[in-house]
Formats: sequence, structure tokens, C-alpha cells
Amino acid sequence: MSQAKSIVVIGGSRGIGLGLVKQALSDYPEATVFATARNPEKATDLQALSDSNKGRLQILALDADDSNSINQAATKIGQQVESLDVVIYNSGVLNGFGNILDVGAQSLIDNMTTNVFGAYHTAIAFAPLLLKSKYERKSLVLLSSSFASMQLADEVAAAHEEGIAKGFDATAMYNISKTALNRLGKELDTVLARQGLPVLLLHPGLVKTDMNPFYDIEVPESVAGMVKVIQTFTPGKKNFYSWNGDALPW
Amino acid sequence: MSQAKSIVVIGGSRGIGLGLVKQALSDYPEATVFATARNPEKATDLQALSDSNKGRLQILALDADDSNSINQAATKIGQQVESLDVVIYNSGVLNGFGNILDVGAQSLIDNMTTNVFGAYHTAIAFAPLLLKSKYERKSLVLLSSSFASMQLADEVAAAHEEGIAKGFDATAMYNISKTALNRLGKELDTVLARQGLPVLLLHPGLVKTDMNPFYDIEVPESVAGMVKVIQTFTPGKKNFYSWNGDALPW
Repeated sequence: MSQAKSIVVIGGSRGIGLGLVKQALSDYPEATVFATARNPEKATDLQALSDSNKGRLQILALDADDSNSINQAATKIGQQVESLDVVIYNSGVLNGFGNILDVGAQSLIDNMTTNVFGAYHTAIAFAPLLLKSKYERKSLVLLSSSFASMQLADEVAAAHEEGIAKGFDATAMYNISKTALNRLGKELDTVLARQGLPVLLLHPGLVKTDMNPFYDIEVPESVAGMVKVIQTFTPGKKNFYSWNGDALPW
Repeated sequence: MSQAKSIVVIGGSRGIGLGLVKQALSDYPEATVFATARNPEKATDLQALSDSNKGRLQILALDADDSNSINQAATKIGQQVESLDVVIYNSGVLNGFGNILDVGAQSLIDNMTTNVFGAYHTAIAFAPLLLKSKYERKSLVLLSSSFASMQLADEVAAAHEEGIAKGFDATAMYNISKTALNRLGKELDTVLARQGLPVLLLHPGLVKTDMNPFYDIEVPESVAGMVKVIQTFTPGKKNFYSWNGDALPW
């Protein structure tokens, strides 16, 4: 099987995104990796990684909340490569931690803007380059969450009430946005998979990062698992998986 | 069992909303019904219904896309009644009919604004009055759709491709917003049901209206079924039902 030659990680400056960049550099040895950051000049971890992987890692500016910025990054990348093999949308926020009755609509809008609208803009901007790829395992990957699952919602709420906040599901607004992201991924897959470009919704696990101090696993374990899932994923009606390869219920 | 004394229908000027107002007037004979319309002066059907139901139907101005307008309507109603027994959020749009790769983000934002953010504003504005109700079957009702279901998504997409548009699911953006609405309803139910106020997500069926020329049933059949579901609904983890009382899968 051929290897991937070009990979994009949207939101690669820290946490899971940075881990994905490192893992992609090691698991796709023939690939150029394009990593985006809101402020490339402040992305010191990415810069160090770029220095130690001469010519293999390029850092681009991209603000996931700004469709123009997404389009500009896609254009710049398109000037360097004719096609892209894998694009991973990792940008995400968890805004409005608290009781849904109190947090207010702006937090829902903020979660939707980064977690859903940004993913949609990314899909539209990068699909043309992905569709040109000859790589057999090409895919558009959207970082979702087990919190997105309607069928696991009672379980997630009960765990949150027990673990992080008494009496309410503190990540409600985030959950709503990730459920919407899953439907976006499902709808994109409906039109793109038949053109050979499946859309994969990936749950990274409950990973220890700045954004999430509650965790089961560390970044290296999560990203190693996720890249394995990406490398073996094929078009199919089932497109929501955990980092360890388990299919997740909608 | 006591009867409901006060019912609100948000978005009651035409189609399913108007049907719900009529049905509420007949099925809750002791109730005052508050119906909202963006432009009450243009809501001639509601005005006629108000004339023939002296003192039982009040028409209020409300723009579901404007949280201030929702708050103002809730305040006005709160000046007249101490509590509300049933509030039905029926406002909704289907924006961006077409291939998800072409329709653009604004259509997703428009669907989210009316179908999800408006429902959230309504929940927050009206929950205090609903929680004061002594009615055993009190509830907050959000008009959802079978198109919201993740588990039915393949089926819905296949039906749409066959019936209304070749090669793509033409209501993708609407579907995403209704999936998000379901998660909103689920999250609201998680905190409100334990306070005695369950949140019901209702699929009206594929009803013949101005908005939807593709249909299985007419408005009177749909709304008669929905009001029956509302009258028999009790707090529970399952809160997504069809107009005919069938539980729907997430």
C-alpha cells in the first residue's frame, strides 16, 4: 500500500493537536505535515518540532473561527501540493462550563463556532485537495468526543454529576456542539464517501491536556491509537470511532 | 387529574403552530392559550381564532431569532399568570435546501439560530413560570423532527435522494440543527425533569404545510396526535416521540 505524502493538522500548537503532529511525523515517514496555529510565532513547541524535522513540518497561521483564514491556509497549501491525503480538524473549545440553565447562549454560540462551523469551513476549503489524492486511505478526520453521543448522554451526564459538578451536566453546551459536529460529519460523509473521501469522527479519549484536567489517558497513547484508526479507516456507513478503534454509538 | 390552565405556543401564526393553537383550545377547554407571531398584525388566522374564542386566546409579538423579544413576551405573560402549564416551541426554519458542499455556512447558522438558539432562549425565559405550575403533566415541548435522529440518518438521506434531490441529502443543514436541538432538549431535560419539568422532543410527522410540500399527513392529524402525546408524557429518560406516540431512536 502507498504511504500518505501530505497531512494537515488544523489546530496543532498544543495538547492533542501537537501530539497528532508528532505522531503523523513518525507514522507517515514519507509525508510533509502542515500544522496550523492561531499564532505561529507563539507556537514554540511546533517551531522546535519543525527545526528537528527539517523540511517535513510546515507551520501556518489559521484561526478556526474565521472562514477567510481557513480559506487562505488552504490556498497556501494548495500552492505547494497538488493534493492532500489526510486532513485532521482538531480545533475545539469547551466554553461555558456550568449548569445549562445559567451559562447563557453565547457559550453555545462559541462552542458551535469553533467546534462545528470551523469544521464545516475546513471541509469545504480542503475537500478539493483531498479529492485529488491517490492515497487509498485518504480521509477527512474531525475530532469529536464520546460526549457527542446521544446514546451515551445519560451515562456521560451521570459521570459528570458524580465527578466534576454536583447536580448538573457541566459540559452541556460542549456536548450539544459535539453532537452537532457528529451530524455534520455524517452529512459530509454522505456526499464525500461516495467520491472516495470518507469522513471519520474520532473520539480522542479523555486525554490529559491543558483543556481537560480530567483524564483516563495521556496524549501519546491517544494520538498513537488515533493515527492507527486513521490509517485503517475505509468508507462505510459507520464513521464514529474511539482512539482505540472501538466503534461508538451515535 | 387537573386540567392545564395556561399554554404557550411559540410560533403559532401558521402551519403546525396554528394547528397546535386550535388543538390546544379544544383539548384544554379550561386553558388560556398564548400564541406568538413575528407580526401579530399580519397573523389573520390567529386573529380570527381569537375573535371566535373570546378571552381564551391571546396573541403576542415574538421573534424567535431575538432573545430580547422572547424575554419580553415571557415578562408580559408573567404579568398575567403566575405559572404556565405547557410551553411549546414550534418556531423553525429550513434554510439552505441543497448539497451540503454548496449551501454555505450562513444557512447552517440560520438554521441553528432559529431551531436551536431560539429554543434555548425560550427554555431559559419560560422555565421559571413552568416550574411554578401545579399541573401534573406540565412540560416544555420542543418541536423536533425525525430528521434529527442520528440512527435514522442513513434512511432519511436515502429517502431524500430518492424523493427530492438526486445524489445528496438536500436538508443536511436543517438536519444538523435538529440533531443539535435534540441534544439541547436532552441536556435541558437532565436538569429540569428532576425538578418536575420534563422536556419533550416531538416529531410532528411529515406534515403538509407551506414550508414542507412533501408530506404524509395533514396538520389536524399531526396536532391531534401531538397534543395527546403532550397530555400523557411523564418525566423519564426517553423524551423523543413521534406525533403518533411512537418513541423515536436518537
